[in-house]
Amino acid sequence: MKSTSRDIRIRNCFSVLRHLIADSPTSRQQLARATDLSVATVSNLVTDLIELGVVVEIGREDSGGGRPRALLAPNTGGGVLIGVDVAETYVQMEVYDLGLSVLERVEERLDTSENSPGAVLGHIVDGVKAARERLDGRPILGLGVSLPGQVDVAGGVSTFAPNWNWRDVPFRDLLEQRLDLDAPIYLDNPLKTVTVGELWFGDGRGVDRLAVVNLGTGCGAGLAFGGELYRGASNAAGEWGHTVIDLEGPQCRCGSRGCIEAYIGAPAILRQWGELDERAAHGSQDEAMAALAAAWAAGEPAAAATIESVAVKLSAGLANLVNVLNPDLVVLIGWVTRALGDRLLPEIESRLPAYCLDATLGSLQLKVNHQRRNMVGLGAAALALEGHLSRINTVGARARR
Amino acid sequence: MKSTSRDIRIRNCFSVLRHLIADSPTSRQQLARATDLSVATVSNLVTDLIELGVVVEIGREDSGGGRPRALLAPNTGGGVLIGVDVAETYVQMEVYDLGLSVLERVEERLDTSENSPGAVLGHIVDGVKAARERLDGRPILGLGVSLPGQVDVAGGVSTFAPNWNWRDVPFRDLLEQRLDLDAPIYLDNPLKTVTVGELWFGDGRGVDRLAVVNLGTGCGAGLAFGGELYRGASNAAGEWGHTVIDLEGPQCRCGSRGCIEAYIGAPAILRQWGELDERAAHGSQDEAMAALAAAWAAGEPAAAATIESVAVKLSAGLANLVNVLNPDLVVLIGWVTRALGDRLLPEIESRLPAYCLDATLGSLQLKVNHQRRNMVGLGAAALALEGHLSRINTVGARARR
Repeated sequence: MKSTSRDIRIRNCFSVLRHLIADSPTSRQQLARATDLSVATVSNLVTDLIELGVVVEIGREDSGGGRPRALLAPNTGGGVLIGVDVAETYVQMEVYDLGLSVLERVEERLDTSENSPGAVLGHIVDGVKAARERLDGRPILGLGVSLPGQVDVAGGVSTFAPNWNWRDVPFRDLLEQRLDLDAPIYLDNPLKTVTVGELWFGDGRGVDRLAVVNLGTGCGAGLAFGGELYRGASNAAGEWGHTVIDLEGPQCRCGSRGCIEAYIGAPAILRQWGELDERAAHGSQDEAMAALAAAWAAGEPAAAATIESVAVKLSAGLANLVNVLNPDLVVLIGWVTRALGDRLLPEIESRLPAYCLDATLGSLQLKVNHQRRNMVGLGAAALALEGHLSRINTVGARARR
Repeated sequence: MKSTSRDIRIRNCFSVLRHLIADSPTSRQQLARATDLSVATVSNLVTDLIELGVVVEIGREDSGGGRPRALLAPNTGGGVLIGVDVAETYVQMEVYDLGLSVLERVEERLDTSENSPGAVLGHIVDGVKAARERLDGRPILGLGVSLPGQVDVAGGVSTFAPNWNWRDVPFRDLLEQRLDLDAPIYLDNPLKTVTVGELWFGDGRGVDRLAVVNLGTGCGAGLAFGGELYRGASNAAGEWGHTVIDLEGPQCRCGSRGCIEAYIGAPAILRQWGELDERAAHGSQDEAMAALAAAWAAGEPAAAATIESVAVKLSAGLANLVNVLNPDLVVLIGWVTRALGDRLLPEIESRLPAYCLDATLGSLQLKVNHQRRNMVGLGAAALALEGHLSRINTVGARARR
C-alpha cells in the first residue's frame, strides 16, 4: 500500500502519453491543458519519454508571438510492441508501433483438439518469428499475451483456464524459453487486457471510474480507477458474470445458480431463443447470434421476446454494478455486443431507471464500444507498453544526474 | 484524475499517523518498517506532523548502541476533533483528542417529530457549545458530521434524506452560521464515515482493498482502495443494499424488487420471524432483534429458520460484492451485526463457497467488527482530521523555505 512519487510519475506519464497518442502532433502546452498537469511536469515527462525512444519532436508550430512550440508525436519509427489475443478458438497476434497502430497481424484458428499449452505456444512462437523477419531489426520492446481464465500476473502463470482444463501452467517461462526474445513478456486475461486497451485507446481514456462490461460466451467486467487497472486482491476482480440475480435461477457453469452469465452469456441467449422458436439458433454461435440480430431487426416475435428478456437481466445486472461502484462510464464490449448492435443500448437505457438509484444513474454514462479493433490484443500490447514506461524513472534519474 | 506528489505526501502522511495512533509511543524507524516507507520519508512527514501540532516527541529509547531514538506519540494535549453521528433516532456528539480517544460524549434522542433541519442543527449547536465550555480553550481543529442519506460532500449539502424527506438542505452553511466556529466542517453519510473510521481505527488499517458492510435498518457498503475512501462519481458508491438478488423478489423501499435490503434489512428480518412465529418480534426494532438473537441461541425453530434464510441471502449478497471487487477484507458492522453476534460469522462462512468463485474467496478475509466504539462518529472526526492533515504540504513548504 506504499505510495511513492515514482507511482505518481508513472501514472502521469501514462496520462501524458495517452493524450499524445490520441491527439498528435501536439505541444507540451496542449498536453498540460489536456492532462491538467503543469507545463513543467509535462516537459519533464516528455524529456524522459524522448530519451526512452517513445516520443519524438517532429516540428514546430507558431505560438502566436512567443517562441515557436515543438510539436510532439509518438515515435512510430522506433521499437514495436506485440499483443497476442489467445481465445478458445483462435490466436491473433498483432505488432504495433508506439502510436498503437497495427503494423502486422497474424491470425490462426485453434482446432478444438489444439488446447494443450504446447499447441498454443507453437502458434505464438511461429507468429513472433514470422513478424520478426519483417521488422527490419526494429526492436521489440515488450510482448503482452492475453490468456483465458485466471492468471497469476506476477508469476506469469495460467492458474486456471476452465475450458481447457489448464492448471498452473508456467506460460511465461515456457514462452521465454522458446522465443529467445530480449524483451519482457506480460500475461493477463482478456477482461484485464481489454480494460487496459480502453484506457489507452478507447472510451476509457481520461475516465476516473470505469467499468468495461464484456458480453460474449462468458460475461465479466474490467474495472479501472484513476486511470489504472483495478485487479483486486488476487487479480480476480470483475467476475460480474458470476454475480447472482436469482438464487433459484438456472444452473451456471460456475456451479452456482442464477448468475448473470446463466441468462445473458451467448449460450443462454441462444437457448432462450431456441425455446421460443424451434427453427432458430442453428449453426455456430456467431452465425446463430447474427441470425437472432437479423430476426430481431425484422420484428420476429420470438427474437424480440428473447432480446427483451436479455435486456431485463442485463439492465438489472448492470444496475447492480452501478449501484455498488457509481462509475462515470460503463462501456459494453464483446462479440455479443457487436452482434446485437446499437439497438441494444436504448433497450438498456429505458430499463436502467427501474433498477438504478437516481444518485448512481444521474452520473452514469453508458456506451457501446465502436472500436473495430481487437481491444484485447491492443490491451495486451498496452500492458507491455506500461511495463516499458515503468523504466522511465531510472532513465530520467540517470539523465539528470 | 491528475495525480500530484502532494497526493502521495498526504496519503503517506495518513499511513504514518494511522500507525502512530495504533501503536504509540514509537520511533521514526519503527514507523518506516510498519509503513514500508524510507526512514527519510517518514522523518520528513513527522517533522511536518510535529509542526502541525499533531505529533509530539515524548522521550527517547535506547537504540542498542547508536544514538538514542526519539519516541513519538499523538499530541493528545493539543487541538481536538468533533465527530457527530446524526441518525434517524438520535444525535451523538463526541470530542476526540488527536489519538482519537473520546474526551466528551453527548447523546440526545431525536423525537420522530424532530426531523426538521432546524431541530437537528439545534442539537448539534447545543452539544458543541456545551463541549466548548469544558475544553479550557483547547482549539477545535475540525468538525465532522455524518448525516443519513445522500450527501454532496463538496457543497456540504444533504441532497436527499429519504426518511426525513430532506432535499437539498445546505446543512454545512446553516451549521457554520449558527456555530461561529473557527474550524472547517465536513459532511458525509454514515457509510462513508464508518469506512474512514475503519481505516483510521479499525480492522481496515493497512488494508489495500476494503469493504465495510453495514447491516442495520438499511444495508450498504463502504469501499476503500489504497487506504482511501472510494466515493464513486457522485459520492453514491456502495449502495450494495439496493443490488438485486431476485428480480421477482419482495418490494424494497427504494422502489425496486428483490434488493438485498428487502431480505436482510432489520424490518425484513423481523417480518420473516413474525411470519414464522406470531408471538415473536414485539417491541422496538432493537428489542425485537435482541429477542430474535436470544431465541436463536435457545434453539427455537422459527428463529433458527429466520437466521438461516438471512444467512443465505447475506452470503449470496456478499459473494456478489466479493466476486466483483475481490477485496482483501470484508468487515461486517452495524447494529444488526452486533445484535446477532459472533454466531452469524460461521453461518456465512459455511455458505460463501456456494456463491463465491474460488479465486475471489481464496484471498478473502471476513470479519465481524468488535469495536465497542461509535465508528460513525469516529469516522466523521477522522474526516476532519484528514482535512486538517491536508494542510501538511503548505506547512512543510513554509517550514523548509
